[in-house]
Amino acid sequence: MIIDDLSNGNLEALRRVERLSGKSIEFFHGDLTEPETVRKCFDGINVEAVIHLAGLKAVGESVDQPARYYRVNLGSTLTLLNTMQERGINRLVFSSSATVYGEPQTSLISESHPVGVGIANPYGWSKAMNEQIISDVARSWPQLSVTLLRYFNPVGAHHSGQIGEAPSGKPNNLMPFIAQVAARRREFLTVFGNDYDTPDGTGVRDYIHVMDLAEGHLAALLHLKSGVKTYNLGSGEGTSVLQAIGAFEKASERAIPYEIYPRRSGDLASVVADPLLAKTEIGWQTRRTFEDACRDAWTWQSLNPHGYDVAK
Amino acid sequence: MIIDDLSNGNLEALRRVERLSGKSIEFFHGDLTEPETVRKCFDGINVEAVIHLAGLKAVGESVDQPARYYRVNLGSTLTLLNTMQERGINRLVFSSSATVYGEPQTSLISESHPVGVGIANPYGWSKAMNEQIISDVARSWPQLSVTLLRYFNPVGAHHSGQIGEAPSGKPNNLMPFIAQVAARRREFLTVFGNDYDTPDGTGVRDYIHVMDLAEGHLAALLHLKSGVKTYNLGSGEGTSVLQAIGAFEKASERAIPYEIYPRRSGDLASVVADPLLAKTEIGWQTRRTFEDACRDAWTWQSLNPHGYDVAK
Repeated sequence: MIIDDLSNGNLEALRRVERLSGKSIEFFHGDLTEPETVRKCFDGINVEAVIHLAGLKAVGESVDQPARYYRVNLGSTLTLLNTMQERGINRLVFSSSATVYGEPQTSLISESHPVGVGIANPYGWSKAMNEQIISDVARSWPQLSVTLLRYFNPVGAHHSGQIGEAPSGKPNNLMPFIAQVAARRREFLTVFGNDYDTPDGTGVRDYIHVMDLAEGHLAALLHLKSGVKTYNLGSGEGTSVLQAIGAFEKASERAIPYEIYPRRSGDLASVVADPLLAKTEIGWQTRRTFEDACRDAWTWQSLNPHGYDVAK
Repeated sequence: MIIDDLSNGNLEALRRVERLSGKSIEFFHGDLTEPETVRKCFDGINVEAVIHLAGLKAVGESVDQPARYYRVNLGSTLTLLNTMQERGINRLVFSSSATVYGEPQTSLISESHPVGVGIANPYGWSKAMNEQIISDVARSWPQLSVTLLRYFNPVGAHHSGQIGEAPSGKPNNLMPFIAQVAARRREFLTVFGNDYDTPDGTGVRDYIHVMDLAEGHLAALLHLKSGVKTYNLGSGEGTSVLQAIGAFEKASERAIPYEIYPRRSGDLASVVADPLLAKTEIGWQTRRTFEDACRDAWTWQSLNPHGYDVAK
């Protein structure tokens, strides 16, 4: 069972998941912040565990619409926890983010890195607050088993090219932006800063293939234990912006024109996950390379130049 | 206009405010977390400014019922901000708490002390999150003028003894507990720790007379400026538990029996406000002493041995 208000999602993606998996998926159209809606969604089904991925996630938009971001992102978690407790559902995997680490104090970030110091936007704060809320609720509810997953930078697409990221408007993230430049939907890529203290001067991030990310959720589900566990979902490897451009050029066999702009305030030189804990405790690690992600993103982009909308 | 769901409040207190002030006060019975309720409350009146004091505030209860605390304390702020923005009401004074400072790094705490590191309970977190939410909303809404007031430890009562603190059940705070011992409703006071690094070994706190606290809100209202301002509301003076007992014995002319117990985990030796910023910027400082607070609390306790309930 999937519940979604379709404010950003698209039913076509769900249909494709059904086609690829050969399974039918029950879908409930509704708003996770509304208690009555969630109760109705849970009625008559046996819920073993919940994967909570709901929420708004555009960093820039969260700066412009903070009240909306807090209302949706905190409200959905509070309503969900409440309904789970009412129904005695006590297994939860929560989609968090490496942004909760705020301004990193080390370039390789393990789960013990401080949380909540120097977070730069309401989106990141809403994730940190959700972690705090869930952890406090878990302390008062000993039967609850929760795993918080801190995503680094998800990229790529399903290898079939059938499911991928379909940003509405200007992409917020590097990979879909590069893909649109390769597809000639945008003229050039803007690179913010080439004077960072990194091998080639551009910002280094930890990119993780979405299929590896999906497998991380399955591993978390299978290893749920009472109390709260927290894992980074990252590759442990840093990729610079220029390296990312190079890899995408190779995968797409297209040139990606780019221009160097000054650094953006708040951007960091290098943010890379220490992924060891997830490997040790839940047996998960990334299996796909950044090159795999570029290839799959390019397949997706080529097959669906305008996302899901035109294909309907 | 006052809006309250009366989950902890009492209409008798409001009637007494009317009697003491000679003014009638409009009251709206409703839940501040419900958008429709707040809209109705605001309908047909001209709201110049809002003082947001709503929320649950018992630290121990917040540990047992975290989801309820977050839902009420964050939900009320989000609904209020939303309705204010809808109606173009852009002046707000928010009731925060010194608990947002978490584990103090200095014994005299100014407003520039870090916030959110080592907060020990969901009540404190809900205040810190509300400060973050309000500050982020203010950044996206330039017309908004907000003042966040960080209370230290409010004590005392209106000097008439007509309005005071009426805790239901066992008091969470020192002064009402002492008052109930003086009134022989409780046998003795428990003092947690007499081996702290303080002059007499017991914990030192900054107590502020509720009438000074009330005046702090008026000063904040009169000095609202666009953007977010934050002020400590404290006396700047530390009082130990033993000093508090002595002062209350003097005010009540009763002996306060007490027993020394081990320290409670999470308790701090000394927490005192640096109150200079409020004095400089909004011309406010405390005018009443701890002895005044003991006298007024004792008058209140003597005239209302069972709070508002019996007096109705």
